Amino acid sequence: MEKKLLHTPVGVRDIYGKECELKIELENKINKVFNTYGYHNIFTPTFEFFDVYSEERGSVSSKDMYKFFDRDGNTLVLRPDITPAIARMVSKYYQDEVFPVKLCYNMNTFINHSELQGKLKESTQLGCEMINDDSIEADAEIIALVVNSLRSTGLDEFLVEVGQVDFYKGIIEKYNLSSEMERELRNRISNKNIFGVEELLEDNKISEDDKKALMELPSLFGSQDVLETAKSLTDNETAINAITRLEKLFKILDEYNVSKYVSIDLGMLSNFNYYTGIIFKAYTYGSGEEIVTGGRYDKLLSQFGESKPAIGFGIYADQILNALYRESLTTDIEIDFTTIVYDKEARVEAIKQAEVLRSQGVNTELILNNNIDLDKFVQSRKDMKISNIIYVSKDGKKEL
Amino acid sequence: MEKKLLHTPVGVRDIYGKECELKIELENKINKVFNTYGYHNIFTPTFEFFDVYSEERGSVSSKDMYKFFDRDGNTLVLRPDITPAIARMVSKYYQDEVFPVKLCYNMNTFINHSELQGKLKESTQLGCEMINDDSIEADAEIIALVVNSLRSTGLDEFLVEVGQVDFYKGIIEKYNLSSEMERELRNRISNKNIFGVEELLEDNKISEDDKKALMELPSLFGSQDVLETAKSLTDNETAINAITRLEKLFKILDEYNVSKYVSIDLGMLSNFNYYTGIIFKAYTYGSGEEIVTGGRYDKLLSQFGESKPAIGFGIYADQILNALYRESLTTDIEIDFTTIVYDKEARVEAIKQAEVLRSQGVNTELILNNNIDLDKFVQSRKDMKISNIIYVSKDGKKEL
Repeated sequence: MEKKLLHTPVGVRDIYGKECELKIELENKINKVFNTYGYHNIFTPTFEFFDVYSEERGSVSSKDMYKFFDRDGNTLVLRPDITPAIARMVSKYYQDEVFPVKLCYNMNTFINHSELQGKLKESTQLGCEMINDDSIEADAEIIALVVNSLRSTGLDEFLVEVGQVDFYKGIIEKYNLSSEMERELRNRISNKNIFGVEELLEDNKISEDDKKALMELPSLFGSQDVLETAKSLTDNETAINAITRLEKLFKILDEYNVSKYVSIDLGMLSNFNYYTGIIFKAYTYGSGEEIVTGGRYDKLLSQFGESKPAIGFGIYADQILNALYRESLTTDIEIDFTTIVYDKEARVEAIKQAEVLRSQGVNTELILNNNIDLDKFVQSRKDMKISNIIYVSKDGKKEL
Repeated sequence: MEKKLLHTPVGVRDIYGKECELKIELENKINKVFNTYGYHNIFTPTFEFFDVYSEERGSVSSKDMYKFFDRDGNTLVLRPDITPAIARMVSKYYQDEVFPVKLCYNMNTFINHSELQGKLKESTQLGCEMINDDSIEADAEIIALVVNSLRSTGLDEFLVEVGQVDFYKGIIEKYNLSSEMERELRNRISNKNIFGVEELLEDNKISEDDKKALMELPSLFGSQDVLETAKSLTDNETAINAITRLEKLFKILDEYNVSKYVSIDLGMLSNFNYYTGIIFKAYTYGSGEEIVTGGRYDKLLSQFGESKPAIGFGIYADQILNALYRESLTTDIEIDFTTIVYDKEARVEAIKQAEVLRSQGVNTELILNNNIDLDKFVQSRKDMKISNIIYVSKDGKKEL
């Protein structure tokens, strides 16, 4: 036997036992919240035409996608991200819909990260997308949904950080920066590299006021106070409107009673090209990994046909599971599970008992005593946190 | 915009609206039955090393798999089938386990069928695998589980046909047929092509008795009576034991009260190379498509390491969904769903009402009246079978 046969490719894994149980429970809880907010589940195909994820729509570089070919030689990719697939789907099936469309999903994404990063290459995303509603109320509903989804998992120590790309875009809009320059500026601001921002801006015809505002951007995070500071830094209308919108957003988040989970980070400028208005990420304490990313993408759908405003997010289930483990919130509760071990001669009785329990919704395992070591067997089930073990023996003996 | 951008690759599809709701409900019902029988969920990666599905283990020919490469040049495939992946996983993580391991899954498989067949290329399988139990009781549990899973979906018009490859293997074992000849013989018997079987056997040194038995095989289907006929056709021990095992199996299926859903087809010789003992398929009336396939595969795990007996099955969720549609069992029940449409001025009240309903588990959609056409909106929700529509207006007016 080749050794390789036992292994999974690097970056993907088997999920089994307790971990799988927790993962399914987690996904069910989150999906339940999505549904109570009136979002309808959808599935898109695991692979799409490459064009759906081409650079102008993409968050993932082409070289990090899993690519292959169909029988006609078209390039297909395993979906590296969900939003463009949903934008495509909505453009196809909801083209004439004028009222809000609220969709949710639980699907895996595939990114061929460089192996040195040690990241998962297949991971599970649960998310929501709201189409046809460009209101601040829509922004607030989405953030409230993120908070309540995370709370449903048992996680309490998390923070949703909200940015607004239009503040930054407003300040730089009059300068017509080259796209490389613009991307580099965004990166340095996102990385809170203030000196780097200064250096980059030196050679350009940026006004002193705007230079100051851009250099302040990485510091504009925290409570709602930073919104006042931000407004004092610019008189660009787009930028001011972005801040006003955030102020209104927080008012509605208060109405949802979730604003204590939300903070501001105006220096957050996502590397997802398609975001337009508010963008957000959620983190748990003790980990730098994002557990949620999302934002408004009012321009994306126009690439697939008609223009429709949209906002959405994805929750990274595998990261949440890690966080729950880290916070020891995955307590070893006994599971409601019964094991019936039986002697062959008592089979009729054992099957009858098992079927009664099953009809009552009790998870019931039936094990034939085929000369098994009963002591070891009982121990194996106790190790699985199963305490309800019944012996149906040929001589009526029930003790184990 | 390129037209292609709106489309999914041939053979894969978006699932949304009512269909998606039904699919999820169906999957939850089936998975619930798996769990009540004590099966534990697992996930394996969407792609595996090609070797896991190489010909000796495979049911799907290499040219029908989606293949691509990892960064080291290894060939990966989208899983075309589940069982070999689980055999690999069990060999890795349950290597030293001596007691029965009962696993279940809900995963998609990917087969690049020739497009002329019009088949789905991505489809959903829900199934179970039981490892470390070679008893007839295990065979019976698996068949009972198939029947009760199918019944849970609302489907009543179905039949599980059970074969036993050892009957056929016993008869031919002494002749050392070439593998091409053997495969052709199996195909002709499976296709109930009796003349083809006769023709093929003419030139070979098969005894008259065995020739007669092989030609009878395609007719050996129906009720348990055929088992008597089968036993009269051969004195080969392997073949006789295969029939005896089926007789005992039916006795236990009676104990499970499911034998009325099960019939015999000794001419069923699966094209899945890994099956060893009983094999089975389920059909609904009015469709030739299999809705379940399964069987015993006692030799497969030895290819991944230690030998362990195993038996399992997969239910094709997409086929079940088709069958339910065909039998009109997907009645248009009103869904428990509330729509609240509100004027901006009444937002606080609307959010409060929505949050109360959500906390009670009622799926509740909140729609801002952003100068929308309320009559058309109400009609759109009625079209979605939503009858509970609440208007929270600025002037207290509630009628719509």
